[in-house]
Amino acid sequence: MKNKDLNYPLKTIRAGILGVSGYTGCEAFALLLKHPGVRLTYVAANNTQGPMADIYPEFLNRTTLVCQKLDIKKAVEKCDVVFLALPHTESMNVAPKLLKAGLKVIDLSADYRLKSGKVYETWYGRKHTDTKNLSKAIYGLPELFRQKIKGATFVANPGCYPTAAILGLAPLISTRKDIQSIVVDAKSGVSGAGRKASLGLLAAEVNDNFKAYKVLSHQHSPEIEQYLSQLAGKSTHIHFVAHLLPITRGILNTMYVQLKDGITLNQLHSLYKKFYKMEPFVRLHSFGGQPEIKNVANTNFCDIGLALSPDKKMVVVTSAIDNLVKGAAGQAVQNMNIMYGFNETEGLL
Amino acid sequence: MKNKDLNYPLKTIRAGILGVSGYTGCEAFALLLKHPGVRLTYVAANNTQGPMADIYPEFLNRTTLVCQKLDIKKAVEKCDVVFLALPHTESMNVAPKLLKAGLKVIDLSADYRLKSGKVYETWYGRKHTDTKNLSKAIYGLPELFRQKIKGATFVANPGCYPTAAILGLAPLISTRKDIQSIVVDAKSGVSGAGRKASLGLLAAEVNDNFKAYKVLSHQHSPEIEQYLSQLAGKSTHIHFVAHLLPITRGILNTMYVQLKDGITLNQLHSLYKKFYKMEPFVRLHSFGGQPEIKNVANTNFCDIGLALSPDKKMVVVTSAIDNLVKGAAGQAVQNMNIMYGFNETEGLL
Amino acid sequence: MKNKDLNYPLKTIRAGILGVSGYTGCEAFALLLKHPGVRLTYVAANNTQGPMADIYPEFLNRTTLVCQKLDIKKAVEKCDVVFLALPHTESMNVAPKLLKAGLKVIDLSADYRLKSGKVYETWYGRKHTDTKNLSKAIYGLPELFRQKIKGATFVANPGCYPTAAILGLAPLISTRKDIQSIVVDAKSGVSGAGRKASLGLLAAEVNDNFKAYKVLSHQHSPEIEQYLSQLAGKSTHIHFVAHLLPITRGILNTMYVQLKDGITLNQLHSLYKKFYKMEPFVRLHSFGGQPEIKNVANTNFCDIGLALSPDKKMVVVTSAIDNLVKGAAGQAVQNMNIMYGFNETEGLL
Amino acid sequence: MKNKDLNYPLKTIRAGILGVSGYTGCEAFALLLKHPGVRLTYVAANNTQGPMADIYPEFLNRTTLVCQKLDIKKAVEKCDVVFLALPHTESMNVAPKLLKAGLKVIDLSADYRLKSGKVYETWYGRKHTDTKNLSKAIYGLPELFRQKIKGATFVANPGCYPTAAILGLAPLISTRKDIQSIVVDAKSGVSGAGRKASLGLLAAEVNDNFKAYKVLSHQHSPEIEQYLSQLAGKSTHIHFVAHLLPITRGILNTMYVQLKDGITLNQLHSLYKKFYKMEPFVRLHSFGGQPEIKNVANTNFCDIGLALSPDKKMVVVTSAIDNLVKGAAGQAVQNMNIMYGFNETEGLL
Repeated sequence: MKNKDLNYPLKTIRAGILGVSGYTGCEAFALLLKHPGVRLTYVAANNTQGPMADIYPEFLNRTTLVCQKLDIKKAVEKCDVVFLALPHTESMNVAPKLLKAGLKVIDLSADYRLKSGKVYETWYGRKHTDTKNLSKAIYGLPELFRQKIKGATFVANPGCYPTAAILGLAPLISTRKDIQSIVVDAKSGVSGAGRKASLGLLAAEVNDNFKAYKVLSHQHSPEIEQYLSQLAGKSTHIHFVAHLLPITRGILNTMYVQLKDGITLNQLHSLYKKFYKMEPFVRLHSFGGQPEIKNVANTNFCDIGLALSPDKKMVVVTSAIDNLVKGAAGQAVQNMNIMYGFNETEGLL
Repeated sequence: MKNKDLNYPLKTIRAGILGVSGYTGCEAFALLLKHPGVRLTYVAANNTQGPMADIYPEFLNRTTLVCQKLDIKKAVEKCDVVFLALPHTESMNVAPKLLKAGLKVIDLSADYRLKSGKVYETWYGRKHTDTKNLSKAIYGLPELFRQKIKGATFVANPGCYPTAAILGLAPLISTRKDIQSIVVDAKSGVSGAGRKASLGLLAAEVNDNFKAYKVLSHQHSPEIEQYLSQLAGKSTHIHFVAHLLPITRGILNTMYVQLKDGITLNQLHSLYKKFYKMEPFVRLHSFGGQPEIKNVANTNFCDIGLALSPDKKMVVVTSAIDNLVKGAAGQAVQNMNIMYGFNETEGLL
Repeated sequence: MKNKDLNYPLKTIRAGILGVSGYTGCEAFALLLKHPGVRLTYVAANNTQGPMADIYPEFLNRTTLVCQKLDIKKAVEKCDVVFLALPHTESMNVAPKLLKAGLKVIDLSADYRLKSGKVYETWYGRKHTDTKNLSKAIYGLPELFRQKIKGATFVANPGCYPTAAILGLAPLISTRKDIQSIVVDAKSGVSGAGRKASLGLLAAEVNDNFKAYKVLSHQHSPEIEQYLSQLAGKSTHIHFVAHLLPITRGILNTMYVQLKDGITLNQLHSLYKKFYKMEPFVRLHSFGGQPEIKNVANTNFCDIGLALSPDKKMVVVTSAIDNLVKGAAGQAVQNMNIMYGFNETEGLL
Repeated sequence: MKNKDLNYPLKTIRAGILGVSGYTGCEAFALLLKHPGVRLTYVAANNTQGPMADIYPEFLNRTTLVCQKLDIKKAVEKCDVVFLALPHTESMNVAPKLLKAGLKVIDLSADYRLKSGKVYETWYGRKHTDTKNLSKAIYGLPELFRQKIKGATFVANPGCYPTAAILGLAPLISTRKDIQSIVVDAKSGVSGAGRKASLGLLAAEVNDNFKAYKVLSHQHSPEIEQYLSQLAGKSTHIHFVAHLLPITRGILNTMYVQLKDGITLNQLHSLYKKFYKMEPFVRLHSFGGQPEIKNVANTNFCDIGLALSPDKKMVVVTSAIDNLVKGAAGQAVQNMNIMYGFNETEGLL
């Protein structure tokens, strides 16, 4: 189905997906199926089994792969690299075994994103049982940590909101010493909540609706703060409010950065332009342009827009991604490309 | 909250709703809350309890009523009339007790719509346990059975698809002897499936999507056929296909009636105009006009459009309703108005 | 069609709508049609004429009123009160003539909301040609200016974003002296943009999409700032960003108020509870509860939620309204009720 | 941006798109941008000019191509093949000039689909001015006319509804002699209406809505009938009703084929299976399976489902496509692949 006949890389890696039945796993499946350097050799899930074309009929005639009952031995046997698209608190049971067996692992759950087991426990309600690998996991945000990802065997793929937030704030946070406060007003489509039967996610509840949720108490706050603090070189706090959009895919973050000293619009644009000059997946809108979710849907792009108050002290950064692609499976593939020396955009454009 | 201070009817009836936590029950609640002749005295459900304003925050500051654990004794004690918004196969356990206690009952489930217990069992998968009342229940389609409803103590409220189908076809079916075939291509919003956590009803599955389901095998077929047969005075069959629209409310049926002898467009319009002349809730579009779901949403109207093939033998009737109002709770209130001698449109315009 | 037979007020006023063909005019029409104290005697528009049931088939069988070519003389002749649902910069040509003729006028455009003709010119791009009445117009936000509205003959109905913003911020702004900054992150459905054929408002552009627009440069900013300043007793600024939601109706504003001294959650809730204790259309969510657009859609309610950061210095206020009802036509009717001594909730519950 | 470095075909063709600013042109642009055998050398439109990344920001950083003012000379100079994504009645002015200059042309408008200039005039309201080429144009439905397309220099790309209808009906129509009537109940997303500012296509009109339009009078009827007649070897009529879905992309047709003699479900499935055995883009659902728009969105697939009435005489065929891909630009690229000897699925999987 994919262009295997193209005289592509001599190297073909064997990839597996655990948790393939969820939205993130499905997206990883779709991307890897088209990736010329990858052979999907094992896909599995805990509660769903059967041909992928039955679980997701969009794959009819496109694959004969069958989703298996998750079995770590088989994953080890059949794969070079494994994508974990498992629910939070499940990845930490699986990852250590795969790593021990010598596989490379890209974890799309939240289990290895926070450096501190304690902070993890506070936000995810479960004691972290694999703190050993926690300290080894590389945070898979290529725009900031590309060099580390290159040599990594274990990557913690960033959360969807954090990807949009950190990419939008990184140029400011890593250069300005006069930031006084940061508000992240975040909006996401429903696929961000995963594929689970729940009243609140029913079409009849979500259609024509919009609401804030987990106001100032979303578990992605500490993830964002951890990496902003690292970039800033000092403890950095944000005020984060998540909202649910009546659409399937996409995140748009509107971020308000209060500066003490002020900045000109030209300086602001130059800062971002320079920061992301070489990045294939970050697109900066020119003066006045604004990102829209539809322009990044089904892509691995992060689009960024900039605005400034008349007194030059309030910067408004807007950033948009597809939560399932740049916010999850696409970024995971981007990380894999870096880890294995593929062209970084391979299978993603 | 409602205009009780208006010098309205001396009579005020005490109404209850069993199964108030579902979409149909909620709609009945909203309508009865505003009805000047009704006092809501008991609302209950099997699996959900608590203040209505907690279950449905749209009722915040509008009611202090609390949804109780369903208790038939209390219903009997507190109500003159009870609306059953329970799931199919549950109403038949509850209705006989309420009727025996002398209450009037309007059942919004499918339990008493089919005249034959056997047919019921075939389509709903459960033996009918109250065939006694089955034969007594009056089918609550006021446009066809108003006189019977007037004297009724027990009304089986029609299904949503059947309401739109039967109202759209009645003028033809009850006058034309040359009908050769009937196709009912029906489309409904998701609230028709009820308020239950199910993967297929998730926003991420329903958004941007459209599909047929239960093709030629939907349980509303026998209900439609039973009443069309009664109107036609002979056994009448339809080909019925249901589809799921990516919206919350509304049904539009497109119906293809093949005639042997043909009819003129003028005759067709005259037929419908005459048939529904006195009906407050049936609106006939003039030549070329077509019903749209948005024009009937949140109303008790059934809008009808008519078209004819050049050979004058294929009539296309389109009918639109709000599945939760004219297709469920609104029609139930209309029936109550008739049963109690209120103005038939009371609380519905 | 409406309950004129109820022994309602002896008084019935004659109302007209100019600009009835737009979304705001249509909503005013729907509300007034059901209002027991009003007789709609004149509806008109500049570019659309014909039976209302043709322009908006939702009114089929509900009215025989015909939308006329706008003629001020006829309006004067036929009406006691006129609702202006005209585009901005058109109301100021019409209002003075109606006022001069002795009618009461409720203007739903932006023409009389800003106290300064200069500020108006800056934001709406047209010199204000009726500064005389500008100074006389009462800002129609009943929760804040009820007494003035009572005696008013000319009301400037608030904008949609300002209604949600000012109601959400009023309790804080009018009592706290330690407010350091205010961010208003506002999201609106597409009907807020009016009923005009424009590429950016096409379903194919809006569906599945979300974007910020007029970032820090929306014409509703000065309106909000003017009334917040009045409440605060000092010049008050906000950072306002508007966003377009892929839905038809509804606004949700998420507002971030930075305090210098801090407040407890109990104090915060008490403040709002007390402030809106007697208000029929403001609903305060209890601790942790959050407003949702679907709960206010098609109603005149403004729902408010509150949250507080751990350091007690960042207050997050969320407010939700239906932009066409509480944000436009519903509030206009509420103002009319106050002006004419009707029950304030008449026709709105 | 695309994998030009893959050792792909020696041959690279130069392609142009006229009318690139509409939805169909934009989709063709996106597909050709990724096609390894194509170099986009000229894109133009009548009323829109500028960088493609300004017109459609989804192409930011993906192309530097600029949409030119349409100039046929330049098209001739720069292209080997030209895709016409112009409005109906405009293609017939442009195509003859391009053909005369020796280019290959794929016309996505309706101008060359109907064999008779008279029929064209009846349905499209304009006299056909290029009947010479009308008779030479090959109807670009590869599943039926692949051999002719191979040698074609001029292809009339099928309409969206006709693609779904003809593919769904072809196996029956070309083998059964006992077909008595055919109903095509068709539903399409709004992008099918093109990118034009029109009240009826506004989000606020389309959201939460559904309606039939051009009932028994849609201009795609004669196109469908022409090719069904050709397949059947006799004049064949259909009853066609179009409906507007509140989504952007996708068509689902539900088709009712009345047979005189009847067929078994096994025979029916075998017939379709055999007919489409070698087709890369037609996917047959197994017994009971039903196509869904979301499974074909953004793909070139046509998914087909089958059902049969108990008396075995009513066949219900459902077919789903993406109207902009298999129903327009994707099929155009498929035709180009065939015309130029590329792999037929190149750039489409």
